[in-house]
Amino acid sequence: MGQDQSSVFDLAAVAAASNGGNNDPLLPPARYIGAPQKPSKMPYNKYVAYDKQVPFDYPERTWPGKRLQRAPRWCSVDLRDGNQALVNPMDSERKLRFWNLLVSLGFKEIEVGFPSASETDYDFIRMLIERELIPDDVTIVVLTQAREHLIRKTYECLKGAKRAVVHFYNSVSVLQREVVFRKDKAGIKKLATDAATLCKELEGEAEGIDLYYEYSPESFTGTEPEYAVEVCNAVIDVIKPTPEHPMIINLPATVEMTTPNVFADQVEYVSNNLVPRDAVVLSLHPHNDEGMGVAATELAVLAGADRVEGCLLGNGERTGNVDLVTLGLNFLTQGIDPQIDYSNVPEIRKTVEYCNQLKISERHPYAGNFVFTAFSGSHQDAIKKGLEARQVAADRAGADLDSFVWLVPYLPIDPKDIGRTYEAIIRVNSQSGKGGMAYLLKTNHNLDLPKRLQVEFDKVVQAYADATKKEVKDEDIWRLFKDEYLPVEESGATAAGAVVGDSKDESLEQWGRLKLLKVSVSSGEDGSDTVLKAKILDRGMNVGVDEPVEREVSGMGNGPLAAFLNALSNFGIEASVMDYVEHTMSVGTDAMAASYVECQIGEEDDPRIVWGVGIDTSIVTSSLKAIISAINRSER
Amino acid sequence: MGQDQSSVFDLAAVAAASNGGNNDPLLPPARYIGAPQKPSKMPYNKYVAYDKQVPFDYPERTWPGKRLQRAPRWCSVDLRDGNQALVNPMDSERKLRFWNLLVSLGFKEIEVGFPSASETDYDFIRMLIERELIPDDVTIVVLTQAREHLIRKTYECLKGAKRAVVHFYNSVSVLQREVVFRKDKAGIKKLATDAATLCKELEGEAEGIDLYYEYSPESFTGTEPEYAVEVCNAVIDVIKPTPEHPMIINLPATVEMTTPNVFADQVEYVSNNLVPRDAVVLSLHPHNDEGMGVAATELAVLAGADRVEGCLLGNGERTGNVDLVTLGLNFLTQGIDPQIDYSNVPEIRKTVEYCNQLKISERHPYAGNFVFTAFSGSHQDAIKKGLEARQVAADRAGADLDSFVWLVPYLPIDPKDIGRTYEAIIRVNSQSGKGGMAYLLKTNHNLDLPKRLQVEFDKVVQAYADATKKEVKDEDIWRLFKDEYLPVEESGATAAGAVVGDSKDESLEQWGRLKLLKVSVSSGEDGSDTVLKAKILDRGMNVGVDEPVEREVSGMGNGPLAAFLNALSNFGIEASVMDYVEHTMSVGTDAMAASYVECQIGEEDDPRIVWGVGIDTSIVTSSLKAIISAINRSER
Repeated sequence: MGQDQSSVFDLAAVAAASNGGNNDPLLPPARYIGAPQKPSKMPYNKYVAYDKQVPFDYPERTWPGKRLQRAPRWCSVDLRDGNQALVNPMDSERKLRFWNLLVSLGFKEIEVGFPSASETDYDFIRMLIERELIPDDVTIVVLTQAREHLIRKTYECLKGAKRAVVHFYNSVSVLQREVVFRKDKAGIKKLATDAATLCKELEGEAEGIDLYYEYSPESFTGTEPEYAVEVCNAVIDVIKPTPEHPMIINLPATVEMTTPNVFADQVEYVSNNLVPRDAVVLSLHPHNDEGMGVAATELAVLAGADRVEGCLLGNGERTGNVDLVTLGLNFLTQGIDPQIDYSNVPEIRKTVEYCNQLKISERHPYAGNFVFTAFSGSHQDAIKKGLEARQVAADRAGADLDSFVWLVPYLPIDPKDIGRTYEAIIRVNSQSGKGGMAYLLKTNHNLDLPKRLQVEFDKVVQAYADATKKEVKDEDIWRLFKDEYLPVEESGATAAGAVVGDSKDESLEQWGRLKLLKVSVSSGEDGSDTVLKAKILDRGMNVGVDEPVEREVSGMGNGPLAAFLNALSNFGIEASVMDYVEHTMSVGTDAMAASYVECQIGEEDDPRIVWGVGIDTSIVTSSLKAIISAINRSER
Repeated sequence: MGQDQSSVFDLAAVAAASNGGNNDPLLPPARYIGAPQKPSKMPYNKYVAYDKQVPFDYPERTWPGKRLQRAPRWCSVDLRDGNQALVNPMDSERKLRFWNLLVSLGFKEIEVGFPSASETDYDFIRMLIERELIPDDVTIVVLTQAREHLIRKTYECLKGAKRAVVHFYNSVSVLQREVVFRKDKAGIKKLATDAATLCKELEGEAEGIDLYYEYSPESFTGTEPEYAVEVCNAVIDVIKPTPEHPMIINLPATVEMTTPNVFADQVEYVSNNLVPRDAVVLSLHPHNDEGMGVAATELAVLAGADRVEGCLLGNGERTGNVDLVTLGLNFLTQGIDPQIDYSNVPEIRKTVEYCNQLKISERHPYAGNFVFTAFSGSHQDAIKKGLEARQVAADRAGADLDSFVWLVPYLPIDPKDIGRTYEAIIRVNSQSGKGGMAYLLKTNHNLDLPKRLQVEFDKVVQAYADATKKEVKDEDIWRLFKDEYLPVEESGATAAGAVVGDSKDESLEQWGRLKLLKVSVSSGEDGSDTVLKAKILDRGMNVGVDEPVEREVSGMGNGPLAAFLNALSNFGIEASVMDYVEHTMSVGTDAMAASYVECQIGEEDDPRIVWGVGIDTSIVTSSLKAIISAINRSER
């Protein structure tokens, strides 16, 4: 391009100099807290706003008011675009493994390579064809630049295939026309139509193949949409697709250059101007340079796209191709069949990471290690309540829980539906509140703590978390809980009335003044005149007891708890029960019961409110142990 | 909530059952290639389309036609929302390091913790205040639930601060109202206004603090927008902000639940209905559950948001908070000052990964290891041409290259502007074409190969890549190139006319029939009668030479090349030059010259076209060596 011709750089330099969007005097002054923000040292005048590079507006747009209705057709380009972006491209073993994964997930269109550019690709495609590894309902796509010798080699590679899409492309962007191809619009369009013409000519060599075409105006996002339509329509005019035998027009966001509303406008414009539209499958090939590839795809589907090319978990050049797993599961969360089987995301991830030799991040939507982890206490609490409410609602509806409508705070998808779990990965740290702790105790230890007990125990966990500044793991919580509420005598517990055996758990130091050794309870027709007799070991050296002494005590009340508290007044202990909850810990006659009592202990003018917990096969013993737990804690 | 009241689950179950968006009979049949797609086994009927959970339409929307104009105000929540989502929350050393990073980048609003929920947070905030670590132009934000004892503790923590934002929140979503809080709309609103009232009452205890408020209707995305506005306006009515002393209304996409056009509609609606709007800073707090957090933020900024909360590189609960680095640099690429100093992304990444103990992915926008890596040959070629064209344009404009307008294919940002490089990370593999190889030779070895020589050498690289199936590294390319074109005699080259020294590079095996030992060139007024004499070592055992023999040859021509070719006919070699390029490899009198000649060698009816390369300080010797290189290669 001669110096006398206007260059894209000249135009861009003018546009950049006049950019100053952030200094637009028409904007109201930014409201601020404290000091106003000052300019940074970033060289923003070096960059040209997208709408000054590719001016386009489309007020006729209808997509913003639309909602997702149906999954598009999917095409995986993992074996081509994904593969070419790897440090070590897949060898044929990895390629075949990836191919098998894609087929098993239900992909019906798979771009298998760029056979004219790579012997490895060529050989792989030949192997698929010759070993008859392509199921009847799967169509392979092969990519080629719109250049004669490459197209010829591409056809050569397809010999013997049952069905295939020949996907040819050339870059049509403003920038590449000038700096890479040094051709004007007519010249660039001719590259495309020449390729299309050659393809038609070569059809004779493709006998027996059910052949389709795909054309990509590459770098579409850097192209005037009107010109892209002109080129695509010229290609369509050569290929002459029909509604019964359509061709694919594929719009690559080769580089993501601006907000996705602009891309959606462009796609809606193209969709409305391709002729004949009903003979075209309008496809997208989005990348993710600005981190908005998924959004750009979904908005462009609203705008009329029929088909999406991408890679599993977002592999691909630079920031990657759009992530097909995220897209598919986003459709699922809207009640739409993704048409791909994503029921085992961990397995997909394993294979993809193996084949690509790239790890995905801990926060990757749906697949990352932490995306079903609630760290915040209020989140954990809400999830716990949400799961319970869902259970109640399903029971009430007589519905199977697994298929019952999923509405749970902070969990947009049921982890089980994609082969994952919520239980395994909840964590408690110094930022968490009682919710997480309570959930863990319930899930892993069948203890359903009353709310105020959660508040009380939370302080214990919190102090521990603040002191250690580490994640509090399940075993930490259980150890803290046992140490705080359960005397070591807990294990070896027997039915009420029998001697309570010694602890078999030597890992914890014995603590607490009182220990229940024996108890008998009798009452009449109702519990109002319950008599309770107990043998208790008193180790209350702190309150003047010289050495452990066994005491027989008895008391009466309107039930065993009241009778027991009455009996305990023998020890000079004044206690009353404020709240009491008990539940079985499993199903069956030998199930353990867990009791929780909130006691007011001590003088009426200076009482202490303390929770106690007891676990026993006997509901009586467990509740008495809970009272002893509370009293012991009050004196600990 | 009693069984007789209608539950969100009942409504949702009906909605889910009637979902069937993908079976909508009004949709035209999907165009397909090959077999039609079949339903997957994914349980889509378990999920309720978002617009059936939170019905909302806003045809008055204006945001789709807008473009980014100015960066919003930024608030980092790394020390709060980010921190609470870590397996091991930051200790004070890491927190302080993160704080220092944020301040150095230019953040003016920093959420520093949830002091009523964590002693670690409380102590950290006290340290910031007491050690006077908060610059005058930085405002700290502290989060608290809208609950009395937590708010009181929050104020206690702020004592002595110069300026602060008290950020209180409660969840207002449909689902959480029912399953977590079990309150109706009025009850939930009262939680918010009670908190606001308490805040106003506690202002007396906050004497000396320039105090601002922020209110978040948490789980905004699960809330009827009309109700969210009602709650926010009720809070505003208690706080009574003014344009001079505004309050922040922060809309959390606590869970990202659908496409970002819907979020933008909601934000535009809220922005248009807050009263008084000019006393409110409208803020966003987006998460990334569906992988569209960045897009949702940018569209919502178009829709009227003034401020954005997020985390560096997208840390945060589950899939993370929105990534402030990506957002800021997206603004930069539109010619807009991001107002944050992102000029050293690698350093930011290092600190963030250290503090969070989490790695970001290789494909993370702007920060990932591979995002400035071009693997594809056509991309590499286009980038090379783009960089050259930009250089030419800058020279023509007399502009400094570093600040000249950035337009390069496949590179939406100049890596240098964010502390990164393109050069270091270009790779060549079996998927790459000549572009990458040519770029490496130019960048690292100052060799600017002519186009057809690139094509020729590409085959060598390609064969090597296909054979090894590995990444071809820079050193591989250089080794291949030397082995192919440069006889080992290359080093130790001297000026024309002198004896060419022996090779000092023992790493390569000597190859090739001919070796230039001596040359002298003489010519008259012009080169038309150039006489060339040369001493050449002939090791042509393959063509009948018994043992290496030195030969004196001479020839005439219209220049040294022609004369040399003429002289070489003494060896029975018929060669002519088809193309010839030579360039200096650096600046200065002792610079080396690189010569490339395309020779036609052999009989006229069966000629071979072969390139040769020569490197020497003498432009003559280098060109003669290039011819010898070509001849030797033709016989190799």
